[in-house]
Amino acid sequence: MKLNIAVLAGDGIGPEVTAQSIKVLKAIALEFDHSFSFKYAPVGAIAIDETGNPLPEATLEQCKNSDAILFGAIGDPKYDNDPSAKVRPEQGLLALRKSLGLYANIRPVKAYDTLLSKSPLKKDIIKGTDISIYRELTGGIYFGKKETSADGDTASDLCEYSRIEIERVAHLAFKAAQSRRKKLTLIDKANVLETSRLWRKVVKEVATNYKDIELDFLFVDNAAMQMILNPKQFDVILTENMFGDIISDEASVIGGSIGLLASASVGDKYAMFEPIHGSYPQATNKGIANPIASILSAAMLLDHFDLNDEADLIRTAVDKSLALHITTPDLNTKYDNITTSKVGDFIADFISNPK
Amino acid sequence: MKLNIAVLAGDGIGPEVTAQSIKVLKAIALEFDHSFSFKYAPVGAIAIDETGNPLPEATLEQCKNSDAILFGAIGDPKYDNDPSAKVRPEQGLLALRKSLGLYANIRPVKAYDTLLSKSPLKKDIIKGTDISIYRELTGGIYFGKKETSADGDTASDLCEYSRIEIERVAHLAFKAAQSRRKKLTLIDKANVLETSRLWRKVVKEVATNYKDIELDFLFVDNAAMQMILNPKQFDVILTENMFGDIISDEASVIGGSIGLLASASVGDKYAMFEPIHGSYPQATNKGIANPIASILSAAMLLDHFDLNDEADLIRTAVDKSLALHITTPDLNTKYDNITTSKVGDFIADFISNPK
Ligand SMILES: [Mg+2]
Ligand SMILES: [Mg+2]
Repeated sequence: MKLNIAVLAGDGIGPEVTAQSIKVLKAIALEFDHSFSFKYAPVGAIAIDETGNPLPEATLEQCKNSDAILFGAIGDPKYDNDPSAKVRPEQGLLALRKSLGLYANIRPVKAYDTLLSKSPLKKDIIKGTDISIYRELTGGIYFGKKETSADGDTASDLCEYSRIEIERVAHLAFKAAQSRRKKLTLIDKANVLETSRLWRKVVKEVATNYKDIELDFLFVDNAAMQMILNPKQFDVILTENMFGDIISDEASVIGGSIGLLASASVGDKYAMFEPIHGSYPQATNKGIANPIASILSAAMLLDHFDLNDEADLIRTAVDKSLALHITTPDLNTKYDNITTSKVGDFIADFISNPK
Repeated sequence: MKLNIAVLAGDGIGPEVTAQSIKVLKAIALEFDHSFSFKYAPVGAIAIDETGNPLPEATLEQCKNSDAILFGAIGDPKYDNDPSAKVRPEQGLLALRKSLGLYANIRPVKAYDTLLSKSPLKKDIIKGTDISIYRELTGGIYFGKKETSADGDTASDLCEYSRIEIERVAHLAFKAAQSRRKKLTLIDKANVLETSRLWRKVVKEVATNYKDIELDFLFVDNAAMQMILNPKQFDVILTENMFGDIISDEASVIGGSIGLLASASVGDKYAMFEPIHGSYPQATNKGIANPIASILSAAMLLDHFDLNDEADLIRTAVDKSLALHITTPDLNTKYDNITTSKVGDFIADFISNPK
């Protein structure tokens, strides 16, 4: 397969972790006889420095002319700590999601056997956890009409959803469930909210196309409890924008390390893949940044094009690196000299020579 | 002090756990020379059976003529499992909160040393956790305008807040912080929501009256993570209705038992105290219902009238019962014959004869 990949490495540790993903994708291309091309474009603080714009027009064009986008991280203290800054790196990410119509955010949450002791939760609670969260990303209260009264004493936010916004992300989630454990949980607050009742109605209708999937429902407050009490009960979670923000961040701490968490943001035409961690400026160029979240994002990119064997091989290589303690210091209890680049080398080598 | 207390014991295990609270309050009255009177009134399924209304007019009147309300639990399978039921027990609770203007919900969350092993979280994460959550209870998106388009394909919910709604619950929370560890965390989503920005503005203004209190802010998605990663960091939490629903339910699992969690719902004129657990119909009249949540709700009732020594004595007695394994089977690893009533007896006896 030929894939043109736009690489938006961004700020802080973004470039060094993304470099490992590219190393790994090149190994995959060689091993499976694909042709991947990588075109680099600036985004975030580095783009502000160069052009004054966190998402330059040329970068957006590059993305639109690519099959997929590999994103690093953005954010720089010189902007974040300046309340008077008019342009902020993060605006680049929001503008990108919006311009490309990326309406579904996908976040896998997995408890790795070798890392169970790093979790704040007990081992027996989390062992075996393997969740895929589908969050609607461009609707709901975050994007609804916002108003403040003239006297500044009243404010409002409108949460709105339409059938089509629910259907498109629901189809993605049901399809994902079909290749997993065939269970989908809709998280809503249908006992109180009108939008949640619409979600429940539309999702039930969509479900009639996926008769092999078991569908259940959970109120968001109960879901926030269940995620701690028994995360193993979940397979695919589907939910609206704000509930997805809260529940996916809550779930992100289960595995014990944010350095392992990948994500995808998908629309009808474009798709972007990125680690959920930030630009972590303090760690920049020290060789200590954990590249696994970025590498697993590259695996999600391959899954997106149905290159599932290739994606699985990356995940096997990652499991191997964790089992052999070939990890950066944040996860390593055995060696203290494994750099970002060495982790990338190990995983790429494993792909070329699976043992 | 003279207190007229309306007792709305409700359904399921409500009456048996509330009976223990009354036993305990009578012991307190005797020991501290107070005069507490108890007037019983029906609410919930039992009220529907008697009158057709989950909150009969006479019950509401009784509440309005009392200094405080001790509430048990409501809900009965014969209504909950009947989708065609027009009147539901839970409507009684909502109607009560609304009729009495109970705008602040207060939920303490505490990790008891003797029960640390029951938590899904690791001991070192939760040991020492002691949080008081102040949730706005009558505003926000749960009560805002709800609309569905004529074709049923679009729906909306409006989240609205006014300055006064924020101020009154904020004052309660700041005052609580003054008698605790002097820290208040506002949970919002001010980077996205207009209502959250109003909350932040008004809470900052209210804070100028409480210069001894350290005020900080946390976005709700981050708060959902922090509650698991490091719950000890929180003292008083203040938040809007829906965020409070999600975060307080998430926090409720930290202690390892829902059978210990009390709550208060407070307004300018009235105040109601209740365990957060439900009516647990399967356990009714078996002597296995844990009365501690109800007894700790009675302690919150005393705190409400500044009877803090009295409230503290109840809490000391509860700690003692936990330490000596005088608890119902849900918590007991040592004895299997301690009934609901025996727990109440032990705590009341301890109050009469503190050892
Ligand atoms: Mg978030
Ligand atoms: Mg709730």
